[in-house]
Amino acid sequence: MSDILKPSRRAFLRGSAAAAAGLTAGAAARAGTPDPLITEIQPWAQVFGDGVDATPYGLPIEYESDVIRRNVEWLTADTTSSINFTPIHALDGTITPQGCAFERHHSGAIELRKQDYRLMVNGLVDTPLVFTYDDLERFPRENHVYFCECAANTGMEWAGAQLNGAQFTHGMIHNMEYTGVSLRTILNEAGLGAAGDLADKWVYVEGADASSNGRSIPMEKALDDVLVAFKANGEALRKEHGYPVRLVVPGWEGNLWVKWLRRIEVMDGPVESREETSKYTDTLEDGTSRKWTWVMDAKSVITSPSPQAPITHGHGSLVITGLAWSGHGAITRVDVSKDGGVTWETARLAKPGEKMALTRFYLDTEWNGEEMLLQARAMDETGYVQPTKDQLREVRGENSIYHNNCIQTWHVMPNGEAENVEVS
Amino acid sequence: MSDILKPSRRAFLRGSAAAAAGLTAGAAARAGTPDPLITEIQPWAQVFGDGVDATPYGLPIEYESDVIRRNVEWLTADTTSSINFTPIHALDGTITPQGCAFERHHSGAIELRKQDYRLMVNGLVDTPLVFTYDDLERFPRENHVYFCECAANTGMEWAGAQLNGAQFTHGMIHNMEYTGVSLRTILNEAGLGAAGDLADKWVYVEGADASSNGRSIPMEKALDDVLVAFKANGEALRKEHGYPVRLVVPGWEGNLWVKWLRRIEVMDGPVESREETSKYTDTLEDGTSRKWTWVMDAKSVITSPSPQAPITHGHGSLVITGLAWSGHGAITRVDVSKDGGVTWETARLAKPGEKMALTRFYLDTEWNGEEMLLQARAMDETGYVQPTKDQLREVRGENSIYHNNCIQTWHVMPNGEAENVEVS
Repeated sequence: MSDILKPSRRAFLRGSAAAAAGLTAGAAARAGTPDPLITEIQPWAQVFGDGVDATPYGLPIEYESDVIRRNVEWLTADTTSSINFTPIHALDGTITPQGCAFERHHSGAIELRKQDYRLMVNGLVDTPLVFTYDDLERFPRENHVYFCECAANTGMEWAGAQLNGAQFTHGMIHNMEYTGVSLRTILNEAGLGAAGDLADKWVYVEGADASSNGRSIPMEKALDDVLVAFKANGEALRKEHGYPVRLVVPGWEGNLWVKWLRRIEVMDGPVESREETSKYTDTLEDGTSRKWTWVMDAKSVITSPSPQAPITHGHGSLVITGLAWSGHGAITRVDVSKDGGVTWETARLAKPGEKMALTRFYLDTEWNGEEMLLQARAMDETGYVQPTKDQLREVRGENSIYHNNCIQTWHVMPNGEAENVEVS
Repeated sequence: MSDILKPSRRAFLRGSAAAAAGLTAGAAARAGTPDPLITEIQPWAQVFGDGVDATPYGLPIEYESDVIRRNVEWLTADTTSSINFTPIHALDGTITPQGCAFERHHSGAIELRKQDYRLMVNGLVDTPLVFTYDDLERFPRENHVYFCECAANTGMEWAGAQLNGAQFTHGMIHNMEYTGVSLRTILNEAGLGAAGDLADKWVYVEGADASSNGRSIPMEKALDDVLVAFKANGEALRKEHGYPVRLVVPGWEGNLWVKWLRRIEVMDGPVESREETSKYTDTLEDGTSRKWTWVMDAKSVITSPSPQAPITHGHGSLVITGLAWSGHGAITRVDVSKDGGVTWETARLAKPGEKMALTRFYLDTEWNGEEMLLQARAMDETGYVQPTKDQLREVRGENSIYHNNCIQTWHVMPNGEAENVEVS
């Protein structure tokens, strides 16, 4: 008899009145009244369901119609240069389906057919080249799971707890398996001999949409792990994620992940474009701004319970769960506090952290209706520890928009509802 | 200067006439005529695209409307007890989006609300229990990526090469990240003391649909890695994949992955239900059938080029890619043959193989219009090597339907088109 066959009786739900009665089902069962959902043959067991030709491409079931991307009207002047948010409060695991993965556009999501797609590589290269979509498919491909976080994610928290829900405070993030060609491969195809010393060279990337959203990337990053990607989670990129081709810049702010990628220029310096001067820079307390803050520092958030995911079951066992990530590498540890940071328990990582990818954590605990000030604190392989809001403001002041990776607090009330609060 | 900044000029597309001209773009560019897609400002750069409120839950772009599940009308008498196929010829990476992941129903896909969901655990347990959906969410959760393959996948190949396309020969498979509770946890909650010696005990699982699709699972597997899952690829299971709860039985045939899971009974033997006697058994040459053949043996298929994914670009560099998997553990190696199995080259695995999950392989090669008999051959961590069709028939005869893991052959013609063929 193998080890696995030795049962260990664990009364995991022992805190629940229902479990104490030997049944954890609904009120009817608990009261001793037969539960018709158990004792009677249900309608759905008496009919044929949908056939295999019903949905050639399926959508979520109607009962999950609230698990959608949402935008906040007052955040931006219009919806084409705007943002929406991934419903992270309702998701689990680590993969984000493309259908509900947040969008950030500067001039809206365009339609671009594969046959109309061209990618130009020019500037300080040996041979300027233009690639069709078919050309890109002929280079060696790589697969990697990476998170993409907008630099402005959690940006409203600089001014205090304003948006009530993990979707809105931390939902400018998604995590997908990308398939594409290394940017290094593309650049080497054009040849970098003409560029001379690469240490001070930059790559300027831009998209085919009206905004073009041009950004400068130092050559060292361009030749490291950047991907020219055409698939996400196995299938073609969705229109709103840059179909047919986008840039994937692991660990760096989402604005660099240029969608509908049309041009890569090798240059002897950065362009200092609008998107890296008046935007995507961090204004400090003294009014000066720092730039080239590309990396998304280690961060975490509890997704459940949270304002949009209150505790709806009784007292006793409770699963606290959330996400952690770092642009500097793998997450090594996540701690959870129930008392606003006074005491901490180390959470369980669902899998060992992977570089520049979301990590799911769980704390399997007990809750008996006491108030909680829930926090999560991420640590990454560099030894960096996610800072408190106060620690972050000490260094950065309160004038910033971007790169807020502070510890988030949810106040969970005795009725199980939660709200976004600040603790000092 | 770091190593990464040393460029290595690789004329990867040198086989292509376009590349030789320093341009790999369309005919216009090659002929020296300016390509208006490069030289002119395109319409999509002159308008605003869709705003962030356009698609709260997105679908693939219209140009990908052929990347869908497909069924084959003549395979089954009706569509509610039938199968459709994942468009694996058009996918890359390893994750299968739920929307195009194959379906197999025995009485159609039913609609079952979370609040109507009950899971009964009964039989040889200390305390029979009934769980609501909320109850399940209170147990410790796990995340794992696993493939699910129908036992009948590739079943038509027993009678020779009949269906023309990887989607139809090998598309009864999908690969998702599941979140759920270990079946071990659920069984231990009910208590297995009453069951006595667990070595000869079985678990009978059934679904809430009209077919109920009951199957017997030996206790050792039930206590090993089986999951009671409620999320796939981060979000709720789709209706057609068992919403709100399905069983995940890693490495074992898909029929055991009971959808709309309603009951788990601990028994002192297998039920020998319809689905494990008249179906899902393997009839041999002599007319007898073998049963309890649950594990899906190591297998692979080239997804591109393939009949539905012909070579449409010119001669020169070609990416050959496909999928490999094993119900016995991780894939360790995949070889590719261009000459019907006479000579082999070892393919590149996109990532090290993971237990009971799809592995993506690539062979970056050259093609100059020669005919090819393309084959892939998978090896797993047990040392098992995927057999040829002839080897399989020697053992199994030709009367089987299920568990055909033979090496598949695509005949690629000089025009780049491919067809399903047999080689001996």
